[in-house]
Amino acid sequence: MPSAATNAERFRELHRRHRLFVLPNAWDVPSARIFEDAGFPAVATSSAGVMVSLGYPDGEGIPRAEYLAAVRRIAEKVAIPLSVDIVAGFGPSVADAVETVRQVIEIGGVGVNLEDVDPATERLRPLEAQLERVRAIREYAEAAGVPVVLNARTDALTHGAGTARDRFREAIRRARAYRDAGADCVYPMRLVEGDAIARFLAESPGALNVMVRPGLPTLPELERMGVRRVSFGPAASYAALGLLRRVAADILGARSFERLLDGALTFDELNRLARPAHGSGVAQDVPPSGRARAGPRRSRRPSRRS
Amino acid sequence: MPSAATNAERFRELHRRHRLFVLPNAWDVPSARIFEDAGFPAVATSSAGVMVSLGYPDGEGIPRAEYLAAVRRIAEKVAIPLSVDIVAGFGPSVADAVETVRQVIEIGGVGVNLEDVDPATERLRPLEAQLERVRAIREYAEAAGVPVVLNARTDALTHGAGTARDRFREAIRRARAYRDAGADCVYPMRLVEGDAIARFLAESPGALNVMVRPGLPTLPELERMGVRRVSFGPAASYAALGLLRRVAADILGARSFERLLDGALTFDELNRLARPAHGSGVAQDVPPSGRARAGPRRSRRPSRRS
Repeated sequence: MPSAATNAERFRELHRRHRLFVLPNAWDVPSARIFEDAGFPAVATSSAGVMVSLGYPDGEGIPRAEYLAAVRRIAEKVAIPLSVDIVAGFGPSVADAVETVRQVIEIGGVGVNLEDVDPATERLRPLEAQLERVRAIREYAEAAGVPVVLNARTDALTHGAGTARDRFREAIRRARAYRDAGADCVYPMRLVEGDAIARFLAESPGALNVMVRPGLPTLPELERMGVRRVSFGPAASYAALGLLRRVAADILGARSFERLLDGALTFDELNRLARPAHGSGVAQDVPPSGRARAGPRRSRRPSRRS
Repeated sequence: MPSAATNAERFRELHRRHRLFVLPNAWDVPSARIFEDAGFPAVATSSAGVMVSLGYPDGEGIPRAEYLAAVRRIAEKVAIPLSVDIVAGFGPSVADAVETVRQVIEIGGVGVNLEDVDPATERLRPLEAQLERVRAIREYAEAAGVPVVLNARTDALTHGAGTARDRFREAIRRARAYRDAGADCVYPMRLVEGDAIARFLAESPGALNVMVRPGLPTLPELERMGVRRVSFGPAASYAALGLLRRVAADILGARSFERLLDGALTFDELNRLARPAHGSGVAQDVPPSGRARAGPRRSRRPSRRS
């Protein structure tokens, strides 16, 4: 498995090319491994996806240790760069946020999302307080030798004061300040429409993350506009659970289970997702150049279900 | 929340009616809650679904405590009867299997699946050794005052000796013996075709569980044949991950994320699945008769994502 520093550099490089990349957010091991096998260059956690899967609403209500244990399970099985949503840092202090990043690096994460709403008040953190976190994380990561990619999320468009115009201006102000403080990418929550994205990029050039949602321009359009990164947010969970809801309605209504079988994995395909892509279980044996993502797996064990 | 004994009786009653019911198997909290909200009368864990989601292949490779911690998370959030796949009992001895059932009851499970392949040898356990487990679990559950529904799985059709005919005969022999020893339902793995199911029921009448898979007769046909229970096995995981695979192919191939948005849940819908169906968080306050499953939730919190 490539070193953390190598993976962090690879992940950062994706933000520097003049191309768009899609960052899928997973909620558990097999959802992450499906994305890796498909050929995505990196994968992220969705905080809402992971937390709800464990029975917690999105936010910092889950104990940090329990959240990061779930992240670790994913990190142990994927070789591509893994970015971790750390919400607002898990704790009231700057030191808490840095400690969270320390643990993310220890687990093998090479990117973090940090948002600027204080979970204690559900309001925007004052800009200077958030900048302290951005700077402290940047400094810590450099000192640790793993140049973690910092995606600075701002909720100014939804949580800012004043008119829509005021909130947009606040989001721009924050984006610029976060970039100056060392953020590699900025992520304005609820920046969706093409016109707004274009204006945002004109006023705060640099790597920009937007989230897949209805109303977002197409990927080719986003690329032409100069957007660098499109993340799923919790959309993989929304989609998978939406499918189960349709399956349930079919079975209880029309008494048909066809939808459950349509395009489904096999038992062996599911079971293989519990293992690293190379199936060796000894990640160190895999040279970085040999990380083919969609090839056949080595180890096969008898199927218990087939 | 209804008492464990009440829930166990409700679950057992489903096996006694002359009707078919579908038992969906979940892999985590929201997949279980989706099925509960849809109106299924009970829900089960899929061992493969849960284990792979945690990064373990299906089987007894996962520590029992880690598996049951995931089951507990589900049990804490659903009010309908929950059945737990305990593989072959988690451990070599009869006492191990009984201890697993003790822990399942403690968590709130009211049903168990027990299979007859010994994970240590990957061969069928001798019938008498398996019967000891069935009887010991039955006795323990009665003494504990929670009449757990025991679904006895046999892998004789795939792991038995001799010809297909010999294996079928062995499966019948085991089904009869398991019923006589106190199993509430039998589950012959790989019993799929209509003719074989009809023959099986003729030679071993009683509650029969089959798994959803290609080639299985339709639900109305199964009901006419007298099948009582159809479970998903890991099919919900197969389907959800199959959808993610198609989503990934669309994005990396056609550069379209439409499939990710089609029929998806909203953030609020996802977040609510982390809470019990009634949203009160105080399950004891909910009278059993008031367990409406698809109604609106009470507690709403501001959305972090919308």
